[in-house]
Amino acid sequence: MSDITITQLPSNITDSGIYSGEYPYYMAVDCIIFGFEDSELKLLIINRIFEPEMGKWSLMGGFVQPTETLDKAANRVLYELTGLDNINLNQLITQSEINRDSKARVFSTPYYALIKVQDLDPSRVELSHAKWCPISQLPDLIFDHNNMVANALQHLKIEAQNKPIGFELLPHKFTIPELQSLYEAIYLQKFDNRNFRKNILKMDLLEKLDEKDKENSRKGAWLYQFNVEKYKESCKKGIFFNIPI
Amino acid sequence: MSDITITQLPSNITDSGIYSGEYPYYMAVDCIIFGFEDSELKLLIINRIFEPEMGKWSLMGGFVQPTETLDKAANRVLYELTGLDNINLNQLITQSEINRDSKARVFSTPYYALIKVQDLDPSRVELSHAKWCPISQLPDLIFDHNNMVANALQHLKIEAQNKPIGFELLPHKFTIPELQSLYEAIYLQKFDNRNFRKNILKMDLLEKLDEKDKENSRKGAWLYQFNVEKYKESCKKGIFFNIPI
Repeated sequence: MSDITITQLPSNITDSGIYSGEYPYYMAVDCIIFGFEDSELKLLIINRIFEPEMGKWSLMGGFVQPTETLDKAANRVLYELTGLDNINLNQLITQSEINRDSKARVFSTPYYALIKVQDLDPSRVELSHAKWCPISQLPDLIFDHNNMVANALQHLKIEAQNKPIGFELLPHKFTIPELQSLYEAIYLQKFDNRNFRKNILKMDLLEKLDEKDKENSRKGAWLYQFNVEKYKESCKKGIFFNIPI
Repeated sequence: MSDITITQLPSNITDSGIYSGEYPYYMAVDCIIFGFEDSELKLLIINRIFEPEMGKWSLMGGFVQPTETLDKAANRVLYELTGLDNINLNQLITQSEINRDSKARVFSTPYYALIKVQDLDPSRVELSHAKWCPISQLPDLIFDHNNMVANALQHLKIEAQNKPIGFELLPHKFTIPELQSLYEAIYLQKFDNRNFRKNILKMDLLEKLDEKDKENSRKGAWLYQFNVEKYKESCKKGIFFNIPI
């Protein structure tokens, strides 16, 4: 049969024959990298300069190497693309449709990460043939990547309601209107300004700085930063972050 | 090198050489099957009658076949063990530690299911060398199966708070004290009887039947059943199930 290829198993596998009736498959990871810029939630996508699907837009992914766990592979892919490490990566449901990859049976485990756009070197983005694309204007991505993004967005919505993960997307110093516009971008809905401010400040997790952002209005808006220590303390007391949506 | 084995790729893979530098791995699923009996949350575990790890306790698992997605493989494993289909299976995080399986590099995607103990034929359980084991008395399971169970329990706690999944574990007709003891078993804490009853009935999702359970007290306790239609209606209105823990 011409469509069977002989493949070597990784050298760390000593197969005594017990599993020899079973079939091995390729295992990949894909990274869904969210950022926030110009009041928009954005996704980092790359233009593929290799086959298959050369020239199309895609998530950044890679095959899991014999010495890597899934987490390690996802961290490597993220690092290769962005130069960033120590980023919190969240594993999503593994994709396993039989023909999801046109070339071979490949399982892929997607991860999503939230990064600060300004932490990313623009020349690095360009070098990777990558770009920040607003979620509202996503092109058709290869394979099942659009599905993966939809799953990740669903998770992000749930997480952002109960954990202060939105702060991972904002600069270290931000205004309340910026925070509100981030939540509006995630939930695709408008919030009442006064209620939003009240609910956020009520949690007592923001530290008001002695500094104003004057870019967006003459009067300016006070800058805040997230108080990680207070957040940890409040979690210990059983009081969790919660934004009523 | 004696520790390399030549393995055939599945016949549905037409590898044109594009991925030929990459390594394939085995892919498995494991089923975490929860039940509720005698006021205890239980797990269905099997005694392995095959190598590796023969004679030890384990989750029921299996290798993903070339024609199967992960979901399909998990459904098959569940069916083979219990004879049940149409059971809601929830995918958990894929396990990928390099030496998690002592014989080969095997990735495993765990799924958890909630079933009614009385729906399972006891002779079938015996035939599969399986048993219902109280969560509080779990033995050491093979590989990383105890970790998988811990993950599943964590998910169950979150889900049970926001979705009426507890009803999947109870008989169709149940008393409020039975429902309470299920929640107490999941959260390993006691709830105040009056508050629990009040909170549950307030949601208006239970239908009081014209029938009493007299097994546990002379006076008897009213039997209820879960009203799926009302639940769907209330979800549409944006009112979700919620048990304050």
